Amino acid sequence: MLTTLLLLQAAAHSPAVTPKSPGEIVAAAPDAAWRDISPLDLLVLELVNGARVTMRLAPDWAPVHVANIRALAKARWWDGTSVNRVQDNYVVQWGDATEKKPLPQGVVAPPPAEYWRGLGSVWMRALPYRDAYATKVGHSGGWPVASDGKSAWLVHCYGMLGVGRGLAPDTGSGAELYTVTGHAPRHLDRNIATVGRVLEGIEALTSLPRGTGNLGFYEKAEQRVPIRSIRLGTEVTDVPRWQYLDETSAAFAAYADARANRRDAFFNIPAGGVDICNVPVPVRRKP
Amino acid sequence: MLTTLLLLQAAAHSPAVTPKSPGEIVAAAPDAAWRDISPLDLLVLELVNGARVTMRLAPDWAPVHVANIRALAKARWWDGTSVNRVQDNYVVQWGDATEKKPLPQGVVAPPPAEYWRGLGSVWMRALPYRDAYATKVGHSGGWPVASDGKSAWLVHCYGMLGVGRGLAPDTGSGAELYTVTGHAPRHLDRNIATVGRVLEGIEALTSLPRGTGNLGFYEKAEQRVPIRSIRLGTEVTDVPRWQYLDETSAAFAAYADARANRRDAFFNIPAGGVDICNVPVPVRRKP
Repeated sequence: MLTTLLLLQAAAHSPAVTPKSPGEIVAAAPDAAWRDISPLDLLVLELVNGARVTMRLAPDWAPVHVANIRALAKARWWDGTSVNRVQDNYVVQWGDATEKKPLPQGVVAPPPAEYWRGLGSVWMRALPYRDAYATKVGHSGGWPVASDGKSAWLVHCYGMLGVGRGLAPDTGSGAELYTVTGHAPRHLDRNIATVGRVLEGIEALTSLPRGTGNLGFYEKAEQRVPIRSIRLGTEVTDVPRWQYLDETSAAFAAYADARANRRDAFFNIPAGGVDICNVPVPVRRKP
Repeated sequence: MLTTLLLLQAAAHSPAVTPKSPGEIVAAAPDAAWRDISPLDLLVLELVNGARVTMRLAPDWAPVHVANIRALAKARWWDGTSVNRVQDNYVVQWGDATEKKPLPQGVVAPPPAEYWRGLGSVWMRALPYRDAYATKVGHSGGWPVASDGKSAWLVHCYGMLGVGRGLAPDTGSGAELYTVTGHAPRHLDRNIATVGRVLEGIEALTSLPRGTGNLGFYEKAEQRVPIRSIRLGTEVTDVPRWQYLDETSAAFAAYADARANRRDAFFNIPAGGVDICNVPVPVRRKP
């Protein structure tokens, strides 16, 4: 720590400027580089201990699943359900543990398999780096996206939101949701509906005790973590406005480049490349 | 769940055999495919709540750092220290929060920067997939390894063990250790000493409350999680023998292929590729 301070003082007196870290680049991004997230696309989970998890939904990518999720939230369907599965380095999953609660009217079950879109309908800011799973990866509308040259899909990065399902051809309804809490399980891409991401508060889920049952399910009913409510952003009075850093902005380009080539003082060797999930789209509360 | 059962019953009556999952392949691997891990390379962390984390050290990759770690364990240097940093989707770090505890005799501080090895000294079973950070990735001696064609280094996958340090040219001593608890921070590769991995018990660390200070450090002393002891495997009487699945075995080849091409009943589209950190080396207690 002392070393850090000494070096920073030396830099202040030196003509050479220390390159900015990714965080510093994002903090300095102008307001014009930020895009509003519609409150219609916000989903707010509240645990009984008061902890909140704020999510952004992706209606452009899985419209029927997202319509189901909105209908479930409007019907207060999740209130009194619980977090039932906490699998280390994989997912945290919530919903109705009994699997018997009837779905509200208007929910399409099963919905179509909205696992990818035709590439023609998707613009992408591509990253110039190799990827093990896709021929192209990048960002689109604030989402991490991959493509095989024919179709495009949302990538299962840390914090992404997916729809639990049984064996195919089941596509889930949206009533059973999970968020990714470990190294990106990219084998799930195109095999499951990815419907959003966590914007804030994921710590309330990732720090829960791990389930000791099969697939990380809690073995005893009393281990489940009760959910007080899940609401649309438009139904919660004190939800802030959210923004994401536009991938077409110069600030985003500098940020992505800095993530691939760390030049701040800690690093000796910039990697010269970066995994799509190590370029998480920056978000902020609207100032 | 009912759906799952019905489909499995149908498969039992069908001539077509359901392809094995990666876990099933590992479970069926013959004893000859498993290699013993030397008890000399085991490190056992015990929290005051009794939870244990068992680690394997990598003396071939960072010999001076590992010698330091062994000297620290023999001197009981970590007993009464604490987990001080829990940064979500990044690392859990432990050591002496005061940063003032004198190091025991025999500890080399600072050690050389053991961040990579000449490629000539490293055999690697390469994965045939693209990687954003390296020209070749694969496994060697039970470790995830990457190479640029000249040198080879251990990869910062989930559960890997690294040595905290200050700004370069500091190389850390080994007294301050962390384990990776999120999406692989590969930008740390070649910038820090990677000295091992967690074999068992990482849940005791990953489920800790996140630190709210800078870099996920706990802000108050009472939030720190006390460490009862860290011992070499040879100094703990009830430590089981551990083994890893040999990357040169047919079972490992089948396992890695299945991780890249999931054909078990849940999946519609096998990815056709896999990230090095999504092929974690299987380990087991020796039967």
